[in-house]
Amino acid sequence: MTDEESSYDEDITIFSPQGRLYQVEYARETVRKGATTVGIKFDEGILFIALKNDFSKTIESISMEKIFQVDNHIACTYCGLSADARQLIDYLMEEIQINKIWYDEEITIKTLVENLCAYINLFSRYQSVRPFGVVMFIGGIDINGACLFTTDPSGSFIEYSAICEGMNNETVTKYLEKNYKKNLNVEKAIILGLNAIEKATNKKITYEKLEIGIIEKNKTFKKLNQDEIKKFL
Amino acid sequence: MTDEESSYDEDITIFSPQGRLYQVEYARETVRKGATTVGIKFDEGILFIALKNDFSKTIESISMEKIFQVDNHIACTYCGLSADARQLIDYLMEEIQINKIWYDEEITIKTLVENLCAYINLFSRYQSVRPFGVVMFIGGIDINGACLFTTDPSGSFIEYSAICEGMNNETVTKYLEKNYKKNLNVEKAIILGLNAIEKATNKKITYEKLEIGIIEKNKTFKKLNQDEIKKFL
Amino acid sequence: MTDEESSYDEDITIFSPQGRLYQVEYARETVRKGATTVGIKFDEGILFIALKNDFSKTIESISMEKIFQVDNHIACTYCGLSADARQLIDYLMEEIQINKIWYDEEITIKTLVENLCAYINLFSRYQSVRPFGVVMFIGGIDINGACLFTTDPSGSFIEYSAICEGMNNETVTKYLEKNYKKNLNVEKAIILGLNAIEKATNKKITYEKLEIGIIEKNKTFKKLNQDEIKKFL
Amino acid sequence: MTDEESSYDEDITIFSPQGRLYQVEYARETVRKGATTVGIKFDEGILFIALKNDFSKTIESISMEKIFQVDNHIACTYCGLSADARQLIDYLMEEIQINKIWYDEEITIKTLVENLCAYINLFSRYQSVRPFGVVMFIGGIDINGACLFTTDPSGSFIEYSAICEGMNNETVTKYLEKNYKKNLNVEKAIILGLNAIEKATNKKITYEKLEIGIIEKNKTFKKLNQDEIKKFL
Amino acid sequence: MTDEESSYDEDITIFSPQGRLYQVEYARETVRKGATTVGIKFDEGILFIALKNDFSKTIESISMEKIFQVDNHIACTYCGLSADARQLIDYLMEEIQINKIWYDEEITIKTLVENLCAYINLFSRYQSVRPFGVVMFIGGIDINGACLFTTDPSGSFIEYSAICEGMNNETVTKYLEKNYKKNLNVEKAIILGLNAIEKATNKKITYEKLEIGIIEKNKTFKKLNQDEIKKFL
Amino acid sequence: MTDEESSYDEDITIFSPQGRLYQVEYARETVRKGATTVGIKFDEGILFIALKNDFSKTIESISMEKIFQVDNHIACTYCGLSADARQLIDYLMEEIQINKIWYDEEITIKTLVENLCAYINLFSRYQSVRPFGVVMFIGGIDINGACLFTTDPSGSFIEYSAICEGMNNETVTKYLEKNYKKNLNVEKAIILGLNAIEKATNKKITYEKLEIGIIEKNKTFKKLNQDEIKKFL
Amino acid sequence: MTDEESSYDEDITIFSPQGRLYQVEYARETVRKGATTVGIKFDEGILFIALKNDFSKTIESISMEKIFQVDNHIACTYCGLSADARQLIDYLMEEIQINKIWYDEEITIKTLVENLCAYINLFSRYQSVRPFGVVMFIGGIDINGACLFTTDPSGSFIEYSAICEGMNNETVTKYLEKNYKKNLNVEKAIILGLNAIEKATNKKITYEKLEIGIIEKNKTFKKLNQDEIKKFL
Repeated sequence: MTDEESSYDEDITIFSPQGRLYQVEYARETVRKGATTVGIKFDEGILFIALKNDFSKTIESISMEKIFQVDNHIACTYCGLSADARQLIDYLMEEIQINKIWYDEEITIKTLVENLCAYINLFSRYQSVRPFGVVMFIGGIDINGACLFTTDPSGSFIEYSAICEGMNNETVTKYLEKNYKKNLNVEKAIILGLNAIEKATNKKITYEKLEIGIIEKNKTFKKLNQDEIKKFL
Repeated sequence: MTDEESSYDEDITIFSPQGRLYQVEYARETVRKGATTVGIKFDEGILFIALKNDFSKTIESISMEKIFQVDNHIACTYCGLSADARQLIDYLMEEIQINKIWYDEEITIKTLVENLCAYINLFSRYQSVRPFGVVMFIGGIDINGACLFTTDPSGSFIEYSAICEGMNNETVTKYLEKNYKKNLNVEKAIILGLNAIEKATNKKITYEKLEIGIIEKNKTFKKLNQDEIKKFL
Repeated sequence: MTDEESSYDEDITIFSPQGRLYQVEYARETVRKGATTVGIKFDEGILFIALKNDFSKTIESISMEKIFQVDNHIACTYCGLSADARQLIDYLMEEIQINKIWYDEEITIKTLVENLCAYINLFSRYQSVRPFGVVMFIGGIDINGACLFTTDPSGSFIEYSAICEGMNNETVTKYLEKNYKKNLNVEKAIILGLNAIEKATNKKITYEKLEIGIIEKNKTFKKLNQDEIKKFL
Repeated sequence: MTDEESSYDEDITIFSPQGRLYQVEYARETVRKGATTVGIKFDEGILFIALKNDFSKTIESISMEKIFQVDNHIACTYCGLSADARQLIDYLMEEIQINKIWYDEEITIKTLVENLCAYINLFSRYQSVRPFGVVMFIGGIDINGACLFTTDPSGSFIEYSAICEGMNNETVTKYLEKNYKKNLNVEKAIILGLNAIEKATNKKITYEKLEIGIIEKNKTFKKLNQDEIKKFL
Repeated sequence: MTDEESSYDEDITIFSPQGRLYQVEYARETVRKGATTVGIKFDEGILFIALKNDFSKTIESISMEKIFQVDNHIACTYCGLSADARQLIDYLMEEIQINKIWYDEEITIKTLVENLCAYINLFSRYQSVRPFGVVMFIGGIDINGACLFTTDPSGSFIEYSAICEGMNNETVTKYLEKNYKKNLNVEKAIILGLNAIEKATNKKITYEKLEIGIIEKNKTFKKLNQDEIKKFL
Repeated sequence: MTDEESSYDEDITIFSPQGRLYQVEYARETVRKGATTVGIKFDEGILFIALKNDFSKTIESISMEKIFQVDNHIACTYCGLSADARQLIDYLMEEIQINKIWYDEEITIKTLVENLCAYINLFSRYQSVRPFGVVMFIGGIDINGACLFTTDPSGSFIEYSAICEGMNNETVTKYLEKNYKKNLNVEKAIILGLNAIEKATNKKITYEKLEIGIIEKNKTFKKLNQDEIKKFL
Repeated sequence: MTDEESSYDEDITIFSPQGRLYQVEYARETVRKGATTVGIKFDEGILFIALKNDFSKTIESISMEKIFQVDNHIACTYCGLSADARQLIDYLMEEIQINKIWYDEEITIKTLVENLCAYINLFSRYQSVRPFGVVMFIGGIDINGACLFTTDPSGSFIEYSAICEGMNNETVTKYLEKNYKKNLNVEKAIILGLNAIEKATNKKITYEKLEIGIIEKNKTFKKLNQDEIKKFL
């Protein structure tokens, strides 16, 4: 950022002369420092892998969950400020309920993401609030099949077959781009995801720091337990 | 911008001594950096061509849609912040519905654009919000025939026969001004649009980065599929 | 503006030590840069001549209208930010409707202008908004005969027999002051207006850049078509 | 204003260390630059003389009225921002109507002035608005006889037998103090007022720039026409 | 005020490091510059003496009243901004009416003062307003006998037997402290008050600049007329 | 306060890098400059001793009360801004009434203090207000026996057997800590309190500047009259 | 913090270029200076140990409670600003009541914590408030067994088996991590907690400064009395 630009980034979401919204970009920076999070679409399902940061031995690791089921066949995870993320997860769950009550049918995942993003976008346009410091991953299976979205602090969203956010996200994403194939089965998807993380970080991942969630067609949402995770390491 | 001017651009939409609204101009700058977007009026129809930026192989390109049908014979596209654009698309769709319910008749495209611009204008006059960082293209066919409008962050709008916004918009627009003719058929309009983009950017466009939407009289809104696009390249 | 004065102009409409409201004056500056606009009262009618800036060949010039009929015998035009102007035109049309519904009689043009100016004035007194960057011309025929008003961003208004705003407004206005006569017929009024613009700008005006609107007693509001305009050039 | 004082005058109506409200004083400065305005109480009536600034020949001078009848035997004029003044005149007229409807009796002029000043005072105490940049003259005849008040931007008011505001107000006021006598008849009051203005400004006043309004007991409010004015020059 | 303190006095009523509320103190400064005002409690009554500043010969001195009866046996005067004072006088009168309607009994003067001060105090604690720039004198006779209070811009109040505010208030107050005696009759109270003012200011007071109001037990509130005042000079 | 800290204390109650709320601390500074106030718990009762600052001979000292009964067996006093204190006393009295009406039982003193502090705390957390510049002493007898609390501007509270606030509070408090004993009777408590003040201030206290209030079990709240006070000096 | 970062920490909760929310971090600093607080999960129960700072002999130490029962088998303690903590404790108690009334079943502790954190999070996202300066410990037994959570000023929460906040929290936490074992009984848990504090602070703790609260399955919440505490020292 040049000097000329430097005074535009303190105010809440105003444009700089280059047309940038610095507060939104700084919120993105918060995300960049979050623990690595991966989402992969496989044949008839969505996979989330969330890494956990190093944590005290006296933390109940089981409780540090980052992957949440929000409907029968929709789940989400996130990268960034966990407190902000929880507000958006609450928003998702309320939206799903409202849709069921009003229209007596399941909301499509894309509509759900659009509604969430309309909400997030407000916080980048009004001066009395700050943007949400979080990227949400929303994935699942609806009448259109499996799909996987991420949102960003401006309120935009993108659909991916495979994506990584957080620390080392660029190298992990490159690995995914290179190695992702269509019609992966769930096991191959998990292996792809774990390889991407390990290759990119050059560190061995231990099962305690891993959270893996799977949405599969005609199956209930499941999280792998530690034994199941160990098999993949 | 001279030094004398420099302190008027940080506050939200106040006038500078030269009578300029810098926040509105900076929002325009955001648009100038968006992916090239073209709108062309042809004989009895409107054509939108939206380029997509380079994107990861694992993005579901089909999902990165920028052209939206908002009514039977009205569609829109945009250049700038996608999250802001979506709010305005929602506004358009609600406005169309409200009009149908209240007046039991179809809103004219010009009235639709006027209402949208009244809304956009508010965000350039109140101090607690920032302007929308987007230019909307709204086109379609109504009782007055085919028409194509663009809005800007101040809330003004202009009707065009052919227009380009986003990267290289000036050279593309010059090409269009020089080569646009009345009573183009749809194929010639597409060729004109693609030529304008390729000539201006001096790059070959690939079909994956192209989104083409067509509103034609007595036909339903359609987007060209990849095979249809390839035929024009 | 002296140095001593320089810090009073950034805040929204506070008084400087000299008792000036700089934001209102800067809004006036916006108007001064607008395209030349002329209003002339002739015998039993009002004439508006609005120039259009140079514009792209692919703009639908017919759509760049600046003169609007707001009631049977009332029309308006403007000089300045078109998006702001449209809000005020909407205000005028609503006010006219409300008056018809409430009082079952036509609002006089002066009352209409007074109400509009009360609205404009608010935006120069409250800190959460900026003034409107536009001068409105409102003219027509009511029970008191023909009259022509302009408003300004502070919310004041003046009645004229002939007035020019926008680029070169000072030289055009001088021409009008010198050459305006009472009891002009409509043709002479048009010739006076066009001469004033051409003499002042030292440029030949072309018909495409001209919009001419006429309110005449016992006639419907009309805009000259291109052929009619050409006859006067 | 000393340097020490200099930073207290930009904020909206806060006290300086010397206990001054600069924004109110600057609003007063606006008034000081207004066209000269005189009010005189004569035997059983009130006289207002308002000068008009130099103005374009194409302004409808008849329309530049500054003296307004607000009730049968109450009129007002002002010095300062005309747009602000009109809001206060609207306030006066509404207040008079409300009083008639609620109490079925005519409001006394003093109560009317008190209510107006309570409204004006708010705008010197709240931070989201600026003070009104105008001094109102309110005069008329009620059950207590003839009386003449002026208000100021802080919301205080004073009753006068004769007063001048605006350009040259100090020399005109001195003339009035020296020459004012009780029990003037209306003609002598007009001569006194015109002399005061001419003596103070050392300029011959022309009838076109003069507006003279008279409230007399048992007569309807009247404004002198040009012929009547000429007789006094 | 030291440099270290200097930046705490511009914001609306925040504490300085020394725990001071500068805006409240500056409001007090406004009062210090007001015309001298004296309140004295005598045997079975309260006396107010209000000086008027030099004023134009054309001001209706009778109208520059500063002493107001607000109930049968309660009156008030003030020192400071007259426009602010009038708001508080309105508050007093409304409060008295509300009390009569709700409780069907007369409010005690102390309760009245407490309620007024709760209102004044708000304006020293909220950021969107400035404190009232006035000290109110409230005195009268209720079931507890005669009493005399003054309020200040922070919303505190004190009960006095004799007090002076405004110009020269310190020397006048010293005179009152030295010479005040219990069980004064009304004439002696007036002489004490006038002496205090004349001694302190070393100027002869003229009757035109004096306003004297008296609340006495079993008598109606009265203001001395000019003849009555002259007798005491 | 270091330079690094210096800019965190002007904004209304934001945290400094050291996690301090300066506005709350400055409000505490206001209290530190208040007149010395002492609260002592004795056997079956609470004692308040409030000193009054030097004051004018014409102040009605009896009226400068600082100790208030707020319920049958609850009283309070304060140190700091008296106007702020009165708002909190009003709050206490309303709270007690509301509790009686809603629950038909007496509120415990601790609950009363908790509710008051929740109110005070709001004013340290919202940006549009300043904290209350006062420490409240609340004491009395309820079903749990005698108890004595003080609040502070952040909204925290502490229960004491003996406490001093205001000028010289540190030395007085030390004296109290050293000499306080359980099961004091009321006379010994008064002597302890007076000694603490005299020893700490090294000045003889005169009865006029003393206010002493006592809440005792099975007795009504009483304030010592001057003769009763004299006996203890 | 580098210079570049230095201007992002004064505004209420905006992002710095590194994506940090300084106001939230400074609130955390407030907590770091609070008295040491420990929470330990043992076999079928939760233990809280709260240290109290040095305090005056005349403080009623019994009243300085920091551990609160909020439901039959839920308790909480805190570290940081006690006034802020009390608001959150009130929130907890209301939430528990609301849940009982609405759903006729006991809220799970995790849901309770989630709701509390949604509330805390608001205060880190809106510009008109500051974050809460407190870390809450919430523990108890519900249908899922014993659990222990802490919240932070951003509104995030973590579940622990053992955790320390406040002064020396890092060394105490290290001790806990090293020595914590599963299936501790209540006595061993108390000894572990006290040892952790004493070892880390290198000071002998005295019973007066200790508050110990225990939630055990099938037992009522209890706080150890002084004799019980002494046995563990």
